[in-house]
Formats: sequence, C-alpha cells, structure tokens
Amino acid sequence: MCQLLGMNCNTPTDIVFSFTGFANRAGLTDHHGDGWGIAFFEGAGVRTFVDYQSAITSPVADLIKRCPIKSQHVIAHIRKATQGVVSLANCHPFVRELWGRYWVFAHNGDLKQFNPVLDGAYRPVGSTDSELAFCYLLQQLRERFGEDLPSLGALSEALRELAQKIAGHGTFNMLLSNGSALFAHCSTNLHYIIREHPFSSAHLSDEDVSVDFSQVTTSNDRVVIIVTAPLTTDESWVQFQAGELKVFVDGHVVA
Amino acid sequence: MCQLLGMNCNTPTDIVFSFTGFANRAGLTDHHGDGWGIAFFEGAGVRTFVDYQSAITSPVADLIKRCPIKSQHVIAHIRKATQGVVSLANCHPFVRELWGRYWVFAHNGDLKQFNPVLDGAYRPVGSTDSELAFCYLLQQLRERFGEDLPSLGALSEALRELAQKIAGHGTFNMLLSNGSALFAHCSTNLHYIIREHPFSSAHLSDEDVSVDFSQVTTSNDRVVIIVTAPLTTDESWVQFQAGELKVFVDGHVVA
Repeated sequence: MCQLLGMNCNTPTDIVFSFTGFANRAGLTDHHGDGWGIAFFEGAGVRTFVDYQSAITSPVADLIKRCPIKSQHVIAHIRKATQGVVSLANCHPFVRELWGRYWVFAHNGDLKQFNPVLDGAYRPVGSTDSELAFCYLLQQLRERFGEDLPSLGALSEALRELAQKIAGHGTFNMLLSNGSALFAHCSTNLHYIIREHPFSSAHLSDEDVSVDFSQVTTSNDRVVIIVTAPLTTDESWVQFQAGELKVFVDGHVVA
Repeated sequence: MCQLLGMNCNTPTDIVFSFTGFANRAGLTDHHGDGWGIAFFEGAGVRTFVDYQSAITSPVADLIKRCPIKSQHVIAHIRKATQGVVSLANCHPFVRELWGRYWVFAHNGDLKQFNPVLDGAYRPVGSTDSELAFCYLLQQLRERFGEDLPSLGALSEALRELAQKIAGHGTFNMLLSNGSALFAHCSTNLHYIIREHPFSSAHLSDEDVSVDFSQVTTSNDRVVIIVTAPLTTDESWVQFQAGELKVFVDGHVVA
C-alpha cells in the first residue's frame, strides 16, 4: 500500500513540517520506500517532483525538506508497490490537463477487476491501477460535462459518484486537485486537521520536531492537512468515514 | 526570446556539464531570466522541473547542476518572456500525454496571428503562444494517426509539415520528444554536436569549466547535444538550416 498527504490553504503555505514527518515513513518509521512524489499548484501552474528512490534517500526529497515552496494546493505520495514495478512512470502524483487546467491525482489502495474502457482521451503511461483510475475519472468528467468546467457542486457530486463506483473494485483512498479545490475520497484510512487562529504548536509523530504555528502564520490563515495516518502526536485529527468524499477550498470543508 | 537545450543519447547520460553553461545564460552571460525548466525521460516516465525564478537563483536549478540525473532524452529551456507573464504556468518545457506516452515540448521564438482552432483534446493552461503551438501539434497528430503511434518515418514527416505550417506565423525553433526520439525544428538558430568515440575534452563558453569526455564515457557512447547557441569554445557545432527538422535517435541523426 501507499500513503497520501495533501494540503489546502487560503494563503500560499509551505509544507516542509508535514512533509518531513511524512517522508520518514518511506523507510525510517514505515516501509513505503518504492518511490514518492509531490505536486504544488502555483496559480494555474504545477510543479511536480517524482522519484523512484525512497523519500529518505532521494536528493529531490531533500530539496523539498529544505526549500519552503508555498502553495495553496499540494498532493504528495509515498509508494509501497503493489501493482506496477518500481519506476518513475509509476510514481504518484499523476498530472493531466482537462479544460485548460492541470489535474493532480494520487491514490492509496488496490483495485481488482478494474478494467474500464478508455476512449483514448487519457491513457496510462505506467502500469498502475491508480493511473488507470485517474484516466477513467477524467474521461468520465469530460463525457459528463463536455468542454467546460462545471460548478463546484456539480463536479463534487460527479466525483462522489465516480469514486464510489471505482471503490467497488477495492480500496480507493485518493486525493485530487485542479488548483481550485482539493477532493479527498476515503475507502479505509484518511485523516484531516484544520489549523486556524488561534494557532498552537504541534509535534511530529515520525521525527522529534515541533513547530509553533503561531510564530509562522497570521490570524487569517487557514490550513487543512489531509493524510493517511495522523502526522502529529498532540493535535486532534478527524478520521474520514468510509465512502466519504470531502471537498476543501481555502482551508474550509465545503462538502 | 528564449534559449533551448536538448540531449539525445544511446545510453543514459547526465547533462550537468551542458546545463551548467546553459543556465549561466539566465542572467550571467545573457538575459534569459524569466523562468526555466528541464525534463528528463527515464523509461516511459518523465521528471519535469520548472521554476519562474531564473536558472541562476533557482534552488531547483542548483539541484540539477549538483545531481547527475541520467537520461536518454532531455529538453531544457530558459525563458525571456515575450508573450505571457512570468509565471510557473508559462515555463517550458510543457508535458502532455498522447497514445499512452508523455510528450515534452519547448519553443524559442514568437508566433503572430497564430490562432488555431482547438477541439478540446489539448488546451493551454498558461498564456504562451508556445503552449498553444504544442496543443495544436498534438491535436493534429491525433487527428492524423488516430489511436496509435505511427512509424517514426510517418511521425517525422507529419511533424515536418506541421512545424513548417506553424513557422509561417513567426519563429519556431522547437524541441519535442516522446521518449523514443527527439525532434528538433529550426527557424533561425539551432546548433548540434554529436560526441562519440574517440572522445576529447571540451571547454564551456559560459563558464571557465572543462571536461574530458574520454574519462566519463565508454567507446560505445553516443551523445547529441542540441542548443540555440554553441555551448563550448573548442568543438565544431553544426548549424541547422532554416526550416529544417532533424530527428535524433540513440545519438544518431535519423532524418
């Protein structure tokens, strides 16, 4: 299996603290060492870093831990290969373009007997069930909504229905963002926390590091962190319900 | 305007030497400081690094100069903004998927009155004429060849015709790769060199650095470097003809 990490904020924020703990699960505190990746939206643009090396040894992961890249939408993934070999093409997150926007997707879980018919609009490059599910999702969105981005409500409803359908084939914990909203679907394990004023301090569960968020935020900041298993020992994380799709915009749960 | 750098090899090779000189043109030896990017194919997968900062100051560019990432197909770009603001979404190279492969594209030049009708299969995310030309190219390839990758000959012929058509709107120096071949079209300025056995040493024109390639290669290695303006002072670079499209595979010119 794999682990997921996402962030959604109302102001560009760096993810160094959370990613530092998360990356340790790629070999130090857990065994998700078969590649990793992270994508940051910056306006309409996306920076994606992927590596087939573990997030412990990868020099690119080291850069992410040292350089505070600020973003309102981040999706990261550490991989424990179950379907598909260890290779760059199989590293999440995956990126495609739809309606003149980039869409970023990462998945945790295994899908069985999942063989959707693809019409060619999107095809997997690698050999994971995850990238196949992503291609299927985008194809379905394009089929339903034609050539224009629908309202957030309509989009969320479609994604809820599609995620439920895909989850019929196995475990489908996933994070998806188009740079405006972050969609999170839970089959089994997904947690989130909203950090807002008054900010307090937090201590990582995977490394002996604390941060006092009140020193690095303004009172208007709102930051949602979504992760497979809680990242800190002294905060109250909310567990997703099985089958739940949540939509995050500007650090708020909107659906 | 901008500058282009490409590499095509028969064995995975790092581009640290060439990129080090090239990146200096982003502010030290030339003025292409409005963002930069580089993409490396590794098997079917691609790593793309883009930054709206100049390749002189970008910590990501620093990583590329320090870490020898080995690849058979590399495309890099330093930007001097002419159309589109300085932003991540406008940084080359651009990446899209067609026929289950990633395609990587970078462009140097300005296109005027270039308004192709897009059918929605590919749409620009940013506001450059370059990304628009890339979307148009892929749309045309899909229209011509349907759902399967054609032969290299047919693909090259189509790209030659399409590049010529686009170049009717202005300057269209471009590099394109699908991880199997590297296509280079010249309107005005593009040079290449093939390094092969017996290897000699070379000295950068943009920094006082030399490398003795005989120390870091085997006798079977073949490396093509393609660049807007020659990168070394003591090698014989070949200038492309205006209107020429060359196709590189495994360090050979095949068309």
